[in-house]
Amino acid sequence: MTKDWITQLQNTLKADQCSTSASELYRHSHDESDHAPVEPEIVCFPESTEDVKAIMHIAREASVAITPFGVGSGLEGQVIPLNAGISINFERMNRIVKFSPEDLLVTVQPGITRLQLNHIINRHGLQFPIDPGADASIGGMAATNASGTTAVRYGVMRDQIVDLEVVLADGTLLHTGTKAKKSSSGYHLTGLFTGSEGTLGVITEITLKLHGIPEHTIAASCTFETPHQCAEAAHTILLSGIPVQRMEFVDAYSIAKVNVYGNYGLPEKHSLFFEFAGMKGAAEEEAAMAKELLTDLDCENWRVAADSEERALIWKARHEMAYAYRHQAGMTITGGDVCVPISKLPELIDYARELIAESGLEGGVLGHIGDGNFHTSIAYDAKDPSQQLAAEEINEQLAYRAIELEGTCTGEHGVGLGKMKYQNAEHGAAVAVMKNMKRMLDPNNLLNPGKIFP
Amino acid sequence: MTKDWITQLQNTLKADQCSTSASELYRHSHDESDHAPVEPEIVCFPESTEDVKAIMHIAREASVAITPFGVGSGLEGQVIPLNAGISINFERMNRIVKFSPEDLLVTVQPGITRLQLNHIINRHGLQFPIDPGADASIGGMAATNASGTTAVRYGVMRDQIVDLEVVLADGTLLHTGTKAKKSSSGYHLTGLFTGSEGTLGVITEITLKLHGIPEHTIAASCTFETPHQCAEAAHTILLSGIPVQRMEFVDAYSIAKVNVYGNYGLPEKHSLFFEFAGMKGAAEEEAAMAKELLTDLDCENWRVAADSEERALIWKARHEMAYAYRHQAGMTITGGDVCVPISKLPELIDYARELIAESGLEGGVLGHIGDGNFHTSIAYDAKDPSQQLAAEEINEQLAYRAIELEGTCTGEHGVGLGKMKYQNAEHGAAVAVMKNMKRMLDPNNLLNPGKIFP
Repeated sequence: MTKDWITQLQNTLKADQCSTSASELYRHSHDESDHAPVEPEIVCFPESTEDVKAIMHIAREASVAITPFGVGSGLEGQVIPLNAGISINFERMNRIVKFSPEDLLVTVQPGITRLQLNHIINRHGLQFPIDPGADASIGGMAATNASGTTAVRYGVMRDQIVDLEVVLADGTLLHTGTKAKKSSSGYHLTGLFTGSEGTLGVITEITLKLHGIPEHTIAASCTFETPHQCAEAAHTILLSGIPVQRMEFVDAYSIAKVNVYGNYGLPEKHSLFFEFAGMKGAAEEEAAMAKELLTDLDCENWRVAADSEERALIWKARHEMAYAYRHQAGMTITGGDVCVPISKLPELIDYARELIAESGLEGGVLGHIGDGNFHTSIAYDAKDPSQQLAAEEINEQLAYRAIELEGTCTGEHGVGLGKMKYQNAEHGAAVAVMKNMKRMLDPNNLLNPGKIFP
Repeated sequence: MTKDWITQLQNTLKADQCSTSASELYRHSHDESDHAPVEPEIVCFPESTEDVKAIMHIAREASVAITPFGVGSGLEGQVIPLNAGISINFERMNRIVKFSPEDLLVTVQPGITRLQLNHIINRHGLQFPIDPGADASIGGMAATNASGTTAVRYGVMRDQIVDLEVVLADGTLLHTGTKAKKSSSGYHLTGLFTGSEGTLGVITEITLKLHGIPEHTIAASCTFETPHQCAEAAHTILLSGIPVQRMEFVDAYSIAKVNVYGNYGLPEKHSLFFEFAGMKGAAEEEAAMAKELLTDLDCENWRVAADSEERALIWKARHEMAYAYRHQAGMTITGGDVCVPISKLPELIDYARELIAESGLEGGVLGHIGDGNFHTSIAYDAKDPSQQLAAEEINEQLAYRAIELEGTCTGEHGVGLGKMKYQNAEHGAAVAVMKNMKRMLDPNNLLNPGKIFP
């Protein structure tokens, strides 16, 4: 017999806005991580903030869990509806609510993806530069405080948001900010809801700062003998004050993988990838200065992309690194996401390589070296529990070491399911305050239950 | 008879760490605003986080209010101890706890001022660029989410902070973040405590991001016939993507004032002041491009400072604008601090000039035009209640109009006493959430009571 609250949802929304089909329940049971899937009981497709409020009302009355879903490209299981209940899929709430090029602002619904958004705004000379790799939804990126390759220049998702519209568990609809670029008024709820992974409220609108598209962009790459040298080189570039637009590290193991995957013919050494952008003269001056500094540090294979096609190819290769590991028959991938003060990077990258070597598993180290943030990609045979354990052990050791080095267990993927166990080690006494906030805003624990805190 | 809790403070701290002298009570009764002074019953000078915890313990047991005090350069009365009690002066907690040039980070105690900090770190090629004008304490700047002339390039105070050490009302000592440059772990308490004006906890350490000192800096200025033209010109510069380091508007009335005050000989027209900074070639390219754009918009008196002395003089003049109004015998100053989406600036600046003209008072409009943030400086005779009312009326009308234009009543000064009445209009349903947070963290309303919320 269909549960009352499911019938209520079906009666309240339009027929095609609810699905209990096996394929939809499966699609909303997992993300791109290796966390165990859990299916929701129903998937709802709201088309407006009013729909979200209606869903929230029914969920609250029936004490049923609500878990928001963007495109499912997350890496820590945030969209997995642990307590079943309702998965809210935002793909129909993908409109631009208000585009204000004259204010360098855009207000969007959570379901629009970053490429959909850029497709519309790029023609106005504007960009939304945050690039986590996947074509994630803006709502998902806000909920996890995503960042990626351009954070070294533009900051993280939280830095881009001036206002959120949020539906609270009690049905309240509120705005966390205004459309002003800065404000010292009231408590900073925008920052609080950003990165809260759907546990404090459901985001229904996001107002983002936009940036001009730089006049000129130069991509370059070089290699070093050791990951340690790469980290030191990145550190030198940062201290020099050159405002790199991207600065990425990929170790030799991952380069070899992606060469096989995409036939890129990249030199199979520990590599740094750069992007310099701005007015033409400035970008060229910066690239020249970077080359000089890197040459002093004994870099090899310095190469500037000859044209925009070669530039696109380099970044395509960089983004396919994770897939290169993933697309091996029978293998599953687990990934770390540590972030530490810049000077601690060489040590932590060396440690990561040691752990991978000791484990006997195949894995790479790559990441956003200018932010002190890197990922591991460890391939294991999911049918072999000892391999899975060994893979998890690598990331666990890395996370604890990162915290010891005054860093964080997650630079950009979020806590979700995978990083819950590190919250006490990382945040200490602050965890109690966070839990109190959760209790205050969601006393019945209906909003994405089981995430961030056990 | 001395109150028990005062005796307790005197017995717990060293003799010279407590003062009830008339001069100290007066010094801690006011800031630089025209809000009515209220004296504390005692001023404490903690020398360590342990001292702050001890003070908090005694205050909690005796239900006495605590109000933190930096240097008293605030403009909204945040340091005024409305309910008397204890003023905590941080001038002895002014050490650098840890300077990590290799991580572009510094951890400081709240009492250090921004010039003291820069004096120490500048020799390492690093700077802390946030510049609200006054030589404010870093603790005060964090508590109010200060910004100033360089926010257009570097962002606001909240953007610079990766970690705060905070003593809560219940005595808990916590860290809100880590030393990593970015993180997606846990709720963003750093952003929440930043700008909370001492109402949620007492900040005892702040870890700040540092920035390289640009190789080359160019200062320039130009004039326009109308404030409206200035706002449009600023808008054009922003859209061009030129990464100005500063872009300030000063209206002709204020230029005339500061010429009298400091004999600067500036052209007495509505003016824009610029700073371009970076590598030499880049800064020169940017200045040249700006000149071209501004010339197309009919700017006059384009002038590039010939040397660093002239550059320093220009910014000294800009910073003295407020003092130029203030230093008129018998006159008091009240100032607005509105911030709106950039495209709304021309309209709001025109409105400000109209209101000032109608009032018959003397006043100027000036501010951080690149952020959409500007201030009024209205001079009135404090002995004439009708003048005071007229001055307040100007700022009130401006604040409400800014909110109507989807902006904020305070871009950088904070709420304190002066902007409390606008909180409902600006934040709507979010005010209830903010008040619940205040209740959760400070159930007995001992932390800077009467600020932000009545």
